[in-house]
Amino acid sequence: MRKVAIIGVGMTKFGELWDKSLRQLLVESGLEALEDASEKRTLRGKDIEAAYIGNMSAGLFNEQEHLAAMLADYTGMTEGNRPATKVEAACASGGVALYNAYLAVASGRYNIVAVCGLEKMTDLLSGSVTDALVSAADREYEAFYGVTFPSLYAMMARRHMHDYGTTLEQLALVAVKNHRNGYYNPKAQFRRLITVEDVYRSPVIADPLRLLHCSPVSDGAATIILADAKTAKKYTDRLVYILACAQASDTLGLYNRKDLTTMESVVSASKVAYETARLKPKDIDFVEAHDCFTIAEIMAYEDLGFCEKGRGGKMIEEGLTEIDGEIPFNPSGGLKAKGHPVGATGVAQAVEVVLQLREEAEQRQVKGAKIGMSHNIGGTGSTAVVTIYGRDV
Amino acid sequence: MRKVAIIGVGMTKFGELWDKSLRQLLVESGLEALEDASEKRTLRGKDIEAAYIGNMSAGLFNEQEHLAAMLADYTGMTEGNRPATKVEAACASGGVALYNAYLAVASGRYNIVAVCGLEKMTDLLSGSVTDALVSAADREYEAFYGVTFPSLYAMMARRHMHDYGTTLEQLALVAVKNHRNGYYNPKAQFRRLITVEDVYRSPVIADPLRLLHCSPVSDGAATIILADAKTAKKYTDRLVYILACAQASDTLGLYNRKDLTTMESVVSASKVAYETARLKPKDIDFVEAHDCFTIAEIMAYEDLGFCEKGRGGKMIEEGLTEIDGEIPFNPSGGLKAKGHPVGATGVAQAVEVVLQLREEAEQRQVKGAKIGMSHNIGGTGSTAVVTIYGRDV
Repeated sequence: MRKVAIIGVGMTKFGELWDKSLRQLLVESGLEALEDASEKRTLRGKDIEAAYIGNMSAGLFNEQEHLAAMLADYTGMTEGNRPATKVEAACASGGVALYNAYLAVASGRYNIVAVCGLEKMTDLLSGSVTDALVSAADREYEAFYGVTFPSLYAMMARRHMHDYGTTLEQLALVAVKNHRNGYYNPKAQFRRLITVEDVYRSPVIADPLRLLHCSPVSDGAATIILADAKTAKKYTDRLVYILACAQASDTLGLYNRKDLTTMESVVSASKVAYETARLKPKDIDFVEAHDCFTIAEIMAYEDLGFCEKGRGGKMIEEGLTEIDGEIPFNPSGGLKAKGHPVGATGVAQAVEVVLQLREEAEQRQVKGAKIGMSHNIGGTGSTAVVTIYGRDV
Repeated sequence: MRKVAIIGVGMTKFGELWDKSLRQLLVESGLEALEDASEKRTLRGKDIEAAYIGNMSAGLFNEQEHLAAMLADYTGMTEGNRPATKVEAACASGGVALYNAYLAVASGRYNIVAVCGLEKMTDLLSGSVTDALVSAADREYEAFYGVTFPSLYAMMARRHMHDYGTTLEQLALVAVKNHRNGYYNPKAQFRRLITVEDVYRSPVIADPLRLLHCSPVSDGAATIILADAKTAKKYTDRLVYILACAQASDTLGLYNRKDLTTMESVVSASKVAYETARLKPKDIDFVEAHDCFTIAEIMAYEDLGFCEKGRGGKMIEEGLTEIDGEIPFNPSGGLKAKGHPVGATGVAQAVEVVLQLREEAEQRQVKGAKIGMSHNIGGTGSTAVVTIYGRDV
């Protein structure tokens, strides 16, 4: 397998983008990535040999399927009739797109591949976004009985509290930290500081989770350009390498799991990623994690191997995952503050890791970051993608 | 790139399957494929190293996304937390799943990969199937103005009639032929003979296309198992090789095309496929083509290089594409008679090609078939996948 580099990144602002269409978001992030890659030589849409797009459900949100064709069309790839593939794995759609694009370059099949993540959730014509999102759980055996994603994660939170004594304060601190980081991210949906008291005062969504434990409904897109090492150097000297990328599956339904507080898919994917990169948790300088709900970030501390099972609550309490802590989590603000356009998230995480490793993250910069990680999950952890990146030094 | 073989195939009956759920269809076709591959040694779900699933819109049809997790779950792949990927490219979803799985094995990343195609269209809770399907066209610039897929293909048909003198009788003969072939396919949705008069008497859908020019709304699933040549021989001696598989893109909207009667994606993908396999149209013994509407099969004759542009109508009139003709098209009955569960179609085509090449197609067998082709398109040809298969002789 060949060494794979990220040569360009682009991302729209995340938020409720009423004035931008699905297509505009796609184009805006794509053009930014092409421009970003064109340091030494201009990278044009028609230089892209294949493209992958991660999107959860433009069918339900925008009544528009076939986004890969739209991507090919609007990046000029149709000139050579190049292949474009849409993948879907709920909120891990972006990560799965990244994984497949990574394989396509690593295997030698293509030299330059674009990976786009895209979701416009505020266009929904009928029903609720929560209804659309629960299509990522088991419709027949879970959603049919009234479960929603907040309630699925509420069950994980309750069980974690029961088994390990995790507290409401520890959960709240995750949201407080991510809002603090997001405050410095110009592309974040929410740029305001919150307190533990604010979290306690926010309305209950699914006990014990309140509004400020939940990531928001968002629109947005992110694009990265991958290339093999040799091709990469023709375009830019600011290279970030993908040292490992691993994807794993678990049961579709939460009801089938051995343990509600462990995502086996994350444990498995991170194990493969660490082995491939020949690294250990202590070698990682920061993580962009999938904090769709605060409990998910605490479970990520544990499942990714940064602490023992059950110690996640202590990690945030002791400030270890703050931006100047031992292992910063979500310097971007995470899904909580940066926003969570579901299909875009996995790619947006890669964008942040690249900016951090290039030391271009300005006020939210993790000092001296050389190795970064992203952690993207779909549903209740039915799909997980864990990626390790390293800067070219 | 390594040689890739198909070691097992499975397919449900196609039709309005009110008594079977999305999950049951997935499992039924998967188990049949596993059993079919277990000639010399038992292939179990947990032996599958990665899986791809093609589905257009279980989100819109069944309110169930995240089908790759369902596939992993119900094939036992979660035991090793193996990766499963859902791809979507409208009616080419199955073909795109096949293309990506083919690359995954050919590149050496995985030795045994499952490819499933699945759609259950009759479960739609609200709106019409036609509305759901038009999400494969350009929602903002086409569908918004009232266009539907029958009307998009009707425009292609009218233009073909205008430019090349293609007749209503020639279009009707495609449906008559495919119903004749489907009559002998035990898994086909429609097993009844029709006449040109029947086509003329059927109601107008989008002039000049009548009901019997259109493929039906269907439920169904198909699964094939791919393996590298060495692994393949451990499981079975009945090997069919993929000699080439190529995917291509064109504009999302029909309004952007240079010529309404040529699908550039098909021309391009078939060119790559012929070159890769080092074969010419005259070497192909039969084709499973994407006859979503009768005009699409006539355009396929031309775009795949079996006749000159504009001669497609003559091909069917002269009987050249009959099952005992020069180049049989759709011995399975095609989408018209076999049925068209959209995401399943690309994989179901591969199933038919394998059965034909193994000489297991009973009364619809193409005599002496050694090289087969499948042609799977999405939307109005915005995505195309062309695959060439050869039996092990």
